[in-house]
Amino acid sequence: MSLNSFGHVFRVTTWGESHGPALGAVVDGCPPGVALDEAALQLWLDRRKPGQSRYVTQRREPDAVEILSGVFEGQSTGTPIQLLIRNADQRSKDYSEIAKTFRPGHADIAYWQKYGIRDYRGGGRSSARETAARVAAGGVARAALAALAPGLEIRGYMTRIGPHAIDRARFDAAAIDGNPFWCPDPQAAEDWAAYLDALRKSGDSAGAVIEVVASGVPPGLGAPVYGKLDTDLAAAMMSINAVKGVEIGEGMAAAELTGSQNADEIFMGNDGKPVYSSNHAGGVLGGISTGQDVVVRFAVKPTSSILTPRRTVTLSGEATEIVTKGRHDPCVGIRAVPVGEAMMACVLLDHLLLDRAQTGGARGPIG
Amino acid sequence: MSLNSFGHVFRVTTWGESHGPALGAVVDGCPPGVALDEAALQLWLDRRKPGQSRYVTQRREPDAVEILSGVFEGQSTGTPIQLLIRNADQRSKDYSEIAKTFRPGHADIAYWQKYGIRDYRGGGRSSARETAARVAAGGVARAALAALAPGLEIRGYMTRIGPHAIDRARFDAAAIDGNPFWCPDPQAAEDWAAYLDALRKSGDSAGAVIEVVASGVPPGLGAPVYGKLDTDLAAAMMSINAVKGVEIGEGMAAAELTGSQNADEIFMGNDGKPVYSSNHAGGVLGGISTGQDVVVRFAVKPTSSILTPRRTVTLSGEATEIVTKGRHDPCVGIRAVPVGEAMMACVLLDHLLLDRAQTGGARGPIG
Amino acid sequence: MSLNSFGHVFRVTTWGESHGPALGAVVDGCPPGVALDEAALQLWLDRRKPGQSRYVTQRREPDAVEILSGVFEGQSTGTPIQLLIRNADQRSKDYSEIAKTFRPGHADIAYWQKYGIRDYRGGGRSSARETAARVAAGGVARAALAALAPGLEIRGYMTRIGPHAIDRARFDAAAIDGNPFWCPDPQAAEDWAAYLDALRKSGDSAGAVIEVVASGVPPGLGAPVYGKLDTDLAAAMMSINAVKGVEIGEGMAAAELTGSQNADEIFMGNDGKPVYSSNHAGGVLGGISTGQDVVVRFAVKPTSSILTPRRTVTLSGEATEIVTKGRHDPCVGIRAVPVGEAMMACVLLDHLLLDRAQTGGARGPIG
Amino acid sequence: MSLNSFGHVFRVTTWGESHGPALGAVVDGCPPGVALDEAALQLWLDRRKPGQSRYVTQRREPDAVEILSGVFEGQSTGTPIQLLIRNADQRSKDYSEIAKTFRPGHADIAYWQKYGIRDYRGGGRSSARETAARVAAGGVARAALAALAPGLEIRGYMTRIGPHAIDRARFDAAAIDGNPFWCPDPQAAEDWAAYLDALRKSGDSAGAVIEVVASGVPPGLGAPVYGKLDTDLAAAMMSINAVKGVEIGEGMAAAELTGSQNADEIFMGNDGKPVYSSNHAGGVLGGISTGQDVVVRFAVKPTSSILTPRRTVTLSGEATEIVTKGRHDPCVGIRAVPVGEAMMACVLLDHLLLDRAQTGGARGPIG
Repeated sequence: MSLNSFGHVFRVTTWGESHGPALGAVVDGCPPGVALDEAALQLWLDRRKPGQSRYVTQRREPDAVEILSGVFEGQSTGTPIQLLIRNADQRSKDYSEIAKTFRPGHADIAYWQKYGIRDYRGGGRSSARETAARVAAGGVARAALAALAPGLEIRGYMTRIGPHAIDRARFDAAAIDGNPFWCPDPQAAEDWAAYLDALRKSGDSAGAVIEVVASGVPPGLGAPVYGKLDTDLAAAMMSINAVKGVEIGEGMAAAELTGSQNADEIFMGNDGKPVYSSNHAGGVLGGISTGQDVVVRFAVKPTSSILTPRRTVTLSGEATEIVTKGRHDPCVGIRAVPVGEAMMACVLLDHLLLDRAQTGGARGPIG
Repeated sequence: MSLNSFGHVFRVTTWGESHGPALGAVVDGCPPGVALDEAALQLWLDRRKPGQSRYVTQRREPDAVEILSGVFEGQSTGTPIQLLIRNADQRSKDYSEIAKTFRPGHADIAYWQKYGIRDYRGGGRSSARETAARVAAGGVARAALAALAPGLEIRGYMTRIGPHAIDRARFDAAAIDGNPFWCPDPQAAEDWAAYLDALRKSGDSAGAVIEVVASGVPPGLGAPVYGKLDTDLAAAMMSINAVKGVEIGEGMAAAELTGSQNADEIFMGNDGKPVYSSNHAGGVLGGISTGQDVVVRFAVKPTSSILTPRRTVTLSGEATEIVTKGRHDPCVGIRAVPVGEAMMACVLLDHLLLDRAQTGGARGPIG
Repeated sequence: MSLNSFGHVFRVTTWGESHGPALGAVVDGCPPGVALDEAALQLWLDRRKPGQSRYVTQRREPDAVEILSGVFEGQSTGTPIQLLIRNADQRSKDYSEIAKTFRPGHADIAYWQKYGIRDYRGGGRSSARETAARVAAGGVARAALAALAPGLEIRGYMTRIGPHAIDRARFDAAAIDGNPFWCPDPQAAEDWAAYLDALRKSGDSAGAVIEVVASGVPPGLGAPVYGKLDTDLAAAMMSINAVKGVEIGEGMAAAELTGSQNADEIFMGNDGKPVYSSNHAGGVLGGISTGQDVVVRFAVKPTSSILTPRRTVTLSGEATEIVTKGRHDPCVGIRAVPVGEAMMACVLLDHLLLDRAQTGGARGPIG
Repeated sequence: MSLNSFGHVFRVTTWGESHGPALGAVVDGCPPGVALDEAALQLWLDRRKPGQSRYVTQRREPDAVEILSGVFEGQSTGTPIQLLIRNADQRSKDYSEIAKTFRPGHADIAYWQKYGIRDYRGGGRSSARETAARVAAGGVARAALAALAPGLEIRGYMTRIGPHAIDRARFDAAAIDGNPFWCPDPQAAEDWAAYLDALRKSGDSAGAVIEVVASGVPPGLGAPVYGKLDTDLAAAMMSINAVKGVEIGEGMAAAELTGSQNADEIFMGNDGKPVYSSNHAGGVLGGISTGQDVVVRFAVKPTSSILTPRRTVTLSGEATEIVTKGRHDPCVGIRAVPVGEAMMACVLLDHLLLDRAQTGGARGPIG
């Protein structure tokens, strides 16, 4: 993982800024012969697309993906796949007043300090628009996983917006697609709508927690010590804009358990595969998948581009206040759900290929 | 980051198992001319060494580090530094009964499923002994940072054991070295001692939360998008044994804040550098250090090697119960404090060198 | 270096096929603040462009480069630079008859064996068109080198076509741009013209040797053992299509010298820098630049797409003969000159940045 | 490939200096379950060992290899394998007079200029002793290849010493082990003995050419564009001390052929696999193995540590002459034969694993 690339053998390099002509991803190392076309990728991009409800940015971007290389007659060829997404609705004028003033909580000041130059028309590389490229790359990963690990499924949803968490007793997977928040608890979704409507009116924003679960993951993915599956998942999620925490399985709460509570007891299933009494581990032991559901959770901070005035300084060091108009997400975490799913897909495929390299996919038998 | 290596240009590769003859690290990319000797590294290893209180494993390991290459007449030469630590007290017989039975919550079963072979005398690469090599490598990183970033300081401490968190109102940095838990809250340290004594007697173990803070970090370290400073910190900490969650700054709790609460307002300090009203960001914006304290927190799950009987299966698939005798850490999080510090040192040096590569260390002026 | 990427910290990833809609390169790790625009890159691309004489392919490609990201107001921002070049003149029908028959000496059969799928409309990734992306990336490297190492110059030229080598006694740098072969020996250029005219008529092709020299290279670039400057130069040149041999300095002929002949004796120059009696080493000792000219030479095999009938097999394993019509280079080595220059620029910049990372660019004084 | 590591997924990191206590290699990514012990590795090391004839250095090094990790009960476990070789006969006093004077043609001056510090007791990392670690790592690669690609054989030999090349008409594979030069032409071996005896007496040294051939290589290893098999072979060989040129198949001489001469015509063999009329390509087309013999050749320059006086400068910049006493190889190319074999083994295994990652080892059928 270095600068703008991600992955070991399934390697994604993203490029492009929020206010340039286009952005995209080069996907290197995809297996050959994977069925792939633009329509299949567009499905995933449409889930992340802005402007789909009043709770996300009103920027109008079709996010139409073009495949410029690496696919021939509907199949991947094994060569690099260039995925290009044009920026349609840059509307730079919205950003003119932030050219010389740093937004508190935003990457503006850090970019300036490091590079001494920045595309002040928007967030540049720090914009959430970069994540469109990840979703496109994740679509490629999903297509490859469909061929190599049939039965593997990835599902993301939100578990918290601001102070309001879901009630797990009401968890209903079927509800996830039925509200603008990918919320598995219909009652929480109503609370969130009311909460966000009030926040939007007051010109403020909210944080969120997203959970991504992969089921049907083969055992044996991941490797000690710095190539752990959970190490790469943590990096993948933390690399998403605005993410401030990542958890695997029990996560931070594991600190509050005793060893006897935390141990997932092991039994033999009827199919000769191990089953577990619980999944505190989140499907990963010693950095290697066990066959249980892989469970990752991450927190997205509230958008820093808000209408509430905040004190800050200008490029020339003068004290001032800033109010960020533009068209921003009142809860950027909502659109992070398909992004988290995409990163999960990329990491799992990468480790599936890495494991195939080292072990050939053979497995030590139990029983 | 791939399998057993970590870092971009300051690159650490660790090797060795808990019950082999030795373990160690090769450190590649260290700047030349850094003052370095075995005594300087030993200081850090002694902090992680087992057997220093009744709250950690009673295995007796001197953890004496030998420098086999890359240092000449007390200075690094710029070539790879091999750090070797001999295992002294393997006492393999303790482990004989776990050779054929998987410990719930332990990497045993995952290693077996992936590799079809494992060093059943101990945890092999999944053992916390691997972290001795990290601490040695971190010592090299600290020596280089002392030369390149004078004033940079790294300090780790525990903030929680099991259900007992510190009270931040009682935070006293001077107290950290005064108890066996690196606890900055002397009263919490007493509670922890009592709690762990009881747990040990009942043959159980406890989880913990560690916080590592780096102050004096130059602005500009880290890079978008997959080379973010926080991405690499998350990976670094998640790669430590038993870690299940990583947080930067506000961490998971950032989800509960509004944008106006979370924004760290900016002012100009008397020295012409920006100062901030708060540090929800944990010193990192857009993946790049701002000059504020870099704050990382991680949760360590309770040791899975416990005396409390747990249900499990054998290699041949038979149901059984297991009690792990051996000499295990009742709270492995305690010894993770110097490990977290070492990882912070490695990541910061790596990004300092990477930034020097790309920008030459020049900084965009403010004011 | 992995699959379609090249470089350590200045990292180039190319993508695209000869008969797809476009090809290009993502350049990651470029220093910020480098003056850069499309016109500056186009200068280099125009040197490699097909159709400029009767000795190269008659395919008509404007090879116009678009910068889609990473440049703002005429300067690099330090974020990834996407360089896109549209394919204009694919004329796929020319290739229809080679869809099912393997060209001897061509990558066709190897791609088929590996991937089980290939873009039969042309060479796909194995086409020399891929090198347009390298030349564009090399233009970025040159712009950065102009800022970081003023005085560094890179010049390529041909020293052999088929049986006809230049006479070094007639070497005239001013002549290089005065003939269609980048030939520093005007008399050899005339011989080559006659030789190639005859070959073209007989439907055959010729091999070539290219030499690339960088002067003004700072000492200290490169590192032991696998990061040697010459290691990376060898990889860079061997990765160019059709290259079968790479030499540094004396090259293969070094085997015929004695130690006393080969030793470049050292003196102190008037400017306090070492000077050498000769340059058998090609400017690199122990993998590290010495300040002398860096000299690389590589051999390009003759194009395998020829009109002379060759025996081969079809996809279905039947014996047949093939004559490759299409529009191919009678001597593909000619257009490899700007490609070799571009690879030299990329490698030197990458090592200059790597050296800056590790040593800060400080140098051990002599005298 | 970066600094002291080599390989993509089978990754070797070497460490250690000629005059330190030890040197070695960490081998990461080895498949699990490979039969491996110290005796198997020692066989290869003994071939490279100094002091075996009067034509190589008289330094006495047992080069006994210890496996410190990654092997359990005679099998690789899939975790890093540390291979340690102690330096026994450093005899630093031989080098005392070169501490302050640079040897022409040697890495001394380049190391000094880059690092400002060097281990003046010997060549440090630039010493040919580093290659012992490569041979040990190559032994691991060979063991893995024996399991994964039975029938694959690697054989190296010399084809030239100084002005004397072998006569290919006299090539006799059975002769290779029958002389101190790994020479397949017994008559050439006699010429070489006489030539080197004379050179040794005059205090001079000779260059050499080594050829390494791998037969039984599966088709499909290697990948476009920067991950070509020949790209990595070129890098691997050029990274060996004193190598100045690398050739694949026809090599530099490919420039002198026409396309019709160079094309290896294709036929179907009786076993349904393609056979070729010739092997100008050296077994690699488009960067991918075809199943033909993979043929690599490299030139080793004459040792720069010679008794013939050469003009040079001191650390303080004074003009002087140097005569290097010590115990040096009159023809260091001799001991490069097992080193070249080891690098071939590492590259082939790495690409076999990489190919298994991407394609699963499936092959497009012909016929």
